[in-house]
Amino acid sequence: MLLEAIYHRPKQNWAYAYDRSTIHLRVRTKRGDMDSVQAIVGDKYAWDRTKHKVKMRIFASDALFDYWETEAEPPFRRLRYAFGFKQGKSKLYLTESGFVEQLPDDCLTFFDYPFINPVDVFQPPAWVKDAVFYQIFPERFANGDPSLDPERIEPWGAKPTPSNFFGGDLKGVIDHLDYLQELGINAIYFTPVFEATTNHKYDTRDYMKVDPQFGSNELLKSLVDLCHKRGIKVLLDAVFNHAGATFGPFLDAQEKGADSSYAGWFHVRDWPLRVEDGIPTYDTFAFEPIMPKLNTENPDVKKYLLNVARYWVEEIGIDGWRLDVANEVDHAFWREFRNTVKDVNPDAYILGEIWHDSMTWLQGDQFDAVMNYPFTNAVLDYAAYGKLDGRGFANAIGTQLANYPQQVSEAAFNLLDSHDTPRLLTLAGDDERRMKLAALFQFTYPGTPCIYYGDEVGMSGGGDPDCRQCMVWDESRQNGGLLHFYRKLIALRKEHAALRSMDFAFLHAEAKDAAIAYERRSGDERFIIAMNAGDTSRKLTVHAAGGMWQDAFTGETAKAKDKSLTIKLEAGQFVVYKHLG
Amino acid sequence: MLLEAIYHRPKQNWAYAYDRSTIHLRVRTKRGDMDSVQAIVGDKYAWDRTKHKVKMRIFASDALFDYWETEAEPPFRRLRYAFGFKQGKSKLYLTESGFVEQLPDDCLTFFDYPFINPVDVFQPPAWVKDAVFYQIFPERFANGDPSLDPERIEPWGAKPTPSNFFGGDLKGVIDHLDYLQELGINAIYFTPVFEATTNHKYDTRDYMKVDPQFGSNELLKSLVDLCHKRGIKVLLDAVFNHAGATFGPFLDAQEKGADSSYAGWFHVRDWPLRVEDGIPTYDTFAFEPIMPKLNTENPDVKKYLLNVARYWVEEIGIDGWRLDVANEVDHAFWREFRNTVKDVNPDAYILGEIWHDSMTWLQGDQFDAVMNYPFTNAVLDYAAYGKLDGRGFANAIGTQLANYPQQVSEAAFNLLDSHDTPRLLTLAGDDERRMKLAALFQFTYPGTPCIYYGDEVGMSGGGDPDCRQCMVWDESRQNGGLLHFYRKLIALRKEHAALRSMDFAFLHAEAKDAAIAYERRSGDERFIIAMNAGDTSRKLTVHAAGGMWQDAFTGETAKAKDKSLTIKLEAGQFVVYKHLG
Repeated sequence: MLLEAIYHRPKQNWAYAYDRSTIHLRVRTKRGDMDSVQAIVGDKYAWDRTKHKVKMRIFASDALFDYWETEAEPPFRRLRYAFGFKQGKSKLYLTESGFVEQLPDDCLTFFDYPFINPVDVFQPPAWVKDAVFYQIFPERFANGDPSLDPERIEPWGAKPTPSNFFGGDLKGVIDHLDYLQELGINAIYFTPVFEATTNHKYDTRDYMKVDPQFGSNELLKSLVDLCHKRGIKVLLDAVFNHAGATFGPFLDAQEKGADSSYAGWFHVRDWPLRVEDGIPTYDTFAFEPIMPKLNTENPDVKKYLLNVARYWVEEIGIDGWRLDVANEVDHAFWREFRNTVKDVNPDAYILGEIWHDSMTWLQGDQFDAVMNYPFTNAVLDYAAYGKLDGRGFANAIGTQLANYPQQVSEAAFNLLDSHDTPRLLTLAGDDERRMKLAALFQFTYPGTPCIYYGDEVGMSGGGDPDCRQCMVWDESRQNGGLLHFYRKLIALRKEHAALRSMDFAFLHAEAKDAAIAYERRSGDERFIIAMNAGDTSRKLTVHAAGGMWQDAFTGETAKAKDKSLTIKLEAGQFVVYKHLG
Repeated sequence: MLLEAIYHRPKQNWAYAYDRSTIHLRVRTKRGDMDSVQAIVGDKYAWDRTKHKVKMRIFASDALFDYWETEAEPPFRRLRYAFGFKQGKSKLYLTESGFVEQLPDDCLTFFDYPFINPVDVFQPPAWVKDAVFYQIFPERFANGDPSLDPERIEPWGAKPTPSNFFGGDLKGVIDHLDYLQELGINAIYFTPVFEATTNHKYDTRDYMKVDPQFGSNELLKSLVDLCHKRGIKVLLDAVFNHAGATFGPFLDAQEKGADSSYAGWFHVRDWPLRVEDGIPTYDTFAFEPIMPKLNTENPDVKKYLLNVARYWVEEIGIDGWRLDVANEVDHAFWREFRNTVKDVNPDAYILGEIWHDSMTWLQGDQFDAVMNYPFTNAVLDYAAYGKLDGRGFANAIGTQLANYPQQVSEAAFNLLDSHDTPRLLTLAGDDERRMKLAALFQFTYPGTPCIYYGDEVGMSGGGDPDCRQCMVWDESRQNGGLLHFYRKLIALRKEHAALRSMDFAFLHAEAKDAAIAYERRSGDERFIIAMNAGDTSRKLTVHAAGGMWQDAFTGETAKAKDKSLTIKLEAGQFVVYKHLG
């Protein structure tokens, strides 16, 4: 046994309450090292009467490790535990005091999950697991009310620059709700809509007011109401890390300097506020002078921003917030933010923009999910770039599953592109087949898929600002086949719980092989999905339940023989087999 | 390189803000595996201009691992980083995306410390590092006011049972403040003093009232004031996990059942409140019917307990709280508790009773320290029981240093016994020499040492209730030599910053060798401490600064030759060499 590989530490992703009665326990070992692993569990105050052993199963693996998991439902909500490892005739136990060859009679040195307190249990809103999000950059989605247009706008569809405008607005979104409903999405995430000077609106002037170029607070309320009638949730972008240069308090601080009553609203290194050698004398987003960082520890700032957080949920009825640059704001603020938002609507969704390891924010006291860019990278590396073979991809997915509690994976915000990245089709080298494979994986994996507006009609585009082109509404310029594919994909996901469940297992994922197959299950429902991200045709034989299977896209059927199914895949091809029985 | 041994995950003990400008980075490797390790660090928004390499050093080791550490002071408070490993001619890098042989040009895949927000920085009160605590069990320390005695009390010094009384009280403590000051301690931690039915008072009747057997709120205030005049801090015991069976709200719930307006104050599985087959129908501490667990999620309970927390700090002037059964109470409550207490007194000390891994509570939002029983176990295993040799002891200490951020180790509450364990002398098999070695290590190690009342005069006693015997005031029955030793130890620690600093290194800690030596430094001050917990004499030669060294206890001097010092230790002997230069 490789002791150095074995890892467990209470809490985080290793020992956590999954719900109010269930604790998940996990431990890591070197891949392939153990024949079996068990957990020894019981109640610390009645150890002799309650101690028992439970078998653990490998729930994820990656290049170096197997990750074992089991669950316990302790009747008195408290759990002592240790782990037992078996390799051939060798046995070893891991307690909190280290490795021992003999299990002690008492549980004094065992690991401890002290008590399941409901308020500490991380439970993201239930609807998020079933949501299909659509991200809209309002300035570029549709111009529904030309009377609101900025002074100088470009013709719809012209080339975006960092600073030009096209006139997109909220009325434009309202006008296309039929389109969105037909597409099948049931949640919209808007990049910022509050008053600001730029086209992206990330430099807020007034957090309490919809930008007049987009409409009004009343119009947004109508939009939200109309969405709700269609079963569509609405998420707004909370840019609380920094304000804009035209934000009243910043203007005051700029004018009055250290004497301003708003001096404490910012992080000022030197007065007066100015830029020297490209570096502002106050903290900003990056080194961007027009995005002064807000001092979210200041009581007045907190009061102001928490009121903003409350207002749009309570008064306008939005279903949650996406939090810009969320990891640069203090944890204490986000805890108050969560309490404020959940007090008004316990079902509100809090989605942080974090591109990196997010464990600290995903423990129930801060966010419900983060923008899952590690997922993005793994899927792109495999399907879009061909940088990962099947095995490498399965390892990347295994690492991610192991990194977080189960409820985090269930509600992860799985995007493939956004206003901050090149578009998926462009990332896929304009290869529609590769784009489809990426989307297929996204929509048949646990978590919440999100489509960046226009991807579904074949829009391409490089990094910002090219990825922020105007939505293509001219059907002759839309990729109808791709749109059909997305509609089908969304419908399939919504129809079949198996495609959203946590029951996910790779059936085929090998080194130097770009084809993969995986199984999805929920109750009696079973799917086998296979795809070939390589350049040559592949024939896979995978373990499968006996009987007939039917491709959800082509309708073609296949029969499992000897509990295995043979799948032939041309380069770029996929199948989505549903078990008919 | 053993890749499976390498571990890092942002936050917790691996990447944390030590203060408002400094980030500590740590990474783990297999013991002895690497020739060198470095961190590659920079600002994510100005990577090319700011990236640079910093050398890491091994700051702790244990049986399996070396732990490497370095620090960075990022000018804009944000840090991207990766780690580089070198073993012979092999080089490898660890990024957040995994191991790579070539370091990427950009920092996209690096680990991220997003921003140092002051409010999130964990900084325990500065005074705690320099404190020497004395734990008092009030019923057994001194009877200063016989008029308050319970109806039936035993003669002072009789055998304690779980339920008998001896009449100790607050006046008794006041009467002996001279003794405590002479001993040299500068902080007292009282087990509960609020009104309750038992001798230990862990079954609170009234959280707002000092138990009449002990005195009154006014008398406690006088005691606190008198202590403060002598430079002694006072800590009370907050028993917030559970109340007592005579607690008003519990009586009401018991009487009125589910209709009681206090029904929501407890965790009730079945009404009416009763005990069936030894198991209460409501959650309790363990299965103890007279200790009903409080529902700290209930707004009224929170309001009540937070007012209690505030009152004793603000009105009575205590310097902090020790939290009983702290890990079974919800994290959300403790966060509000911290805000409440620190609002009144930012220097108040919050000490949780947790016997197990406490990382979750020690990140700045909950506790300042926990009762460091893992330290207790390591020291006892080495010095008291002889179960660990020098190497095993050094490994146990190494694991503990690596497990927590530096500020946690600096303020750890290092006790060797308490009202919940047998007494140190008894644990040491009544071997005064072994007891002294344990105390010597405790007082020459970072953290806050605590003496359990009476240990210093040679009191012995097994587990509860035997460890709760009456304080021995009769000087003829006190161990004067031991008392002298403790006074000296305390004085030494208070006098020499080197004995309190984090600059700690083992000079000698070998397998099958019960003698150890370690160095303590601060500025120009250096100590070498050596002890022999074995049964045979040992002669050690350790690396030492040149010049003269003097034993702080005996005054004997020794001269370092060729940068080494030879130390002869009889069984159970120790030296505390101070460098004279």
